[in-house]
Amino acid sequence: MTKPVRIIGIDPGLRRCGWGVIEAVDNRLRFVAGGTVKPPLEGSLAERLAALSEGITGVLDDQAPDEVAVEETFVNAGPRSALILGQARGVVLVTPALRGLPVSEYAANLVKKSVVGTGHADKNQIQLMVKTLLPTATIKGADAADALAIAICHAHHRGAAMRAKALA
Amino acid sequence: MTKPVRIIGIDPGLRRCGWGVIEAVDNRLRFVAGGTVKPPLEGSLAERLAALSEGITGVLDDQAPDEVAVEETFVNAGPRSALILGQARGVVLVTPALRGLPVSEYAANLVKKSVVGTGHADKNQIQLMVKTLLPTATIKGADAADALAIAICHAHHRGAAMRAKALA
Repeated sequence: MTKPVRIIGIDPGLRRCGWGVIEAVDNRLRFVAGGTVKPPLEGSLAERLAALSEGITGVLDDQAPDEVAVEETFVNAGPRSALILGQARGVVLVTPALRGLPVSEYAANLVKKSVVGTGHADKNQIQLMVKTLLPTATIKGADAADALAIAICHAHHRGAAMRAKALA
Repeated sequence: MTKPVRIIGIDPGLRRCGWGVIEAVDNRLRFVAGGTVKPPLEGSLAERLAALSEGITGVLDDQAPDEVAVEETFVNAGPRSALILGQARGVVLVTPALRGLPVSEYAANLVKKSVVGTGHADKNQIQLMVKTLLPTATIKGADAADALAIAICHAHHRGAAMRAKALA
């Protein structure tokens, strides 16, 4: 039997940062845990980003994932919103990377395609399919469902990604 | 004599992140050190952000600043550039904040006004005025000069900022 790989998916955000952990053995996936880090709305931006980092650190301590997956953000808002999201995203990428964990990024439409079968899907469809693929999952909110979808996408693509890296 | 305050200014960037350290005693400023953190251009985004964080950590270890100042980024580029800059900026803000250092942000035109006397100034004018205000400074490039300008701006405004915080 192949050793299970523990994957955490993270959906970045400064107010609500969803996370979801699964275990993958070959093609079989098992739900482990999920939730949302909610940094305080008060305080300076630096303090709020530090709270986000500490929240993620707590989850990484508790869940001990082997690999991390984060959605590549598609920005259709203005540059100001993109800057704010970018700041949270930088913290979400750097916190596991500083622990030496491999962090993969996946385009939003690839995440949707991996879970729903099409690159276009709304949040309800994603939540429904995550629930179908991980029947034991207790999903707390749309952010956690998105994070689990990212983890599932990584489970499907990590083999190809690792082989590409080995060849490079 | 008032105890000197050691201030680091940081000019965020993923390729070139300028930093400059000054000591302020009342209205007198003294140049301490300056330089640029240059994360590798290769590797995943998460790895490059981790290298940026480690570079900043090294500078904070060496320079032991009391306070940190970062420019509030004015984004006139598209959302994609704003996202990339935001990611570097998130790392620049969170790295000192996780050490418990106070991080202040200043609008770009306030930084220019503090150093050059007007909100509109080009990089050469800033470098010239930084050199005039800190005669002993050995300035290594425009990024380090910008970072010193941010530190000078904080030295001028920190009293008012601290008083406002104490009243809040």
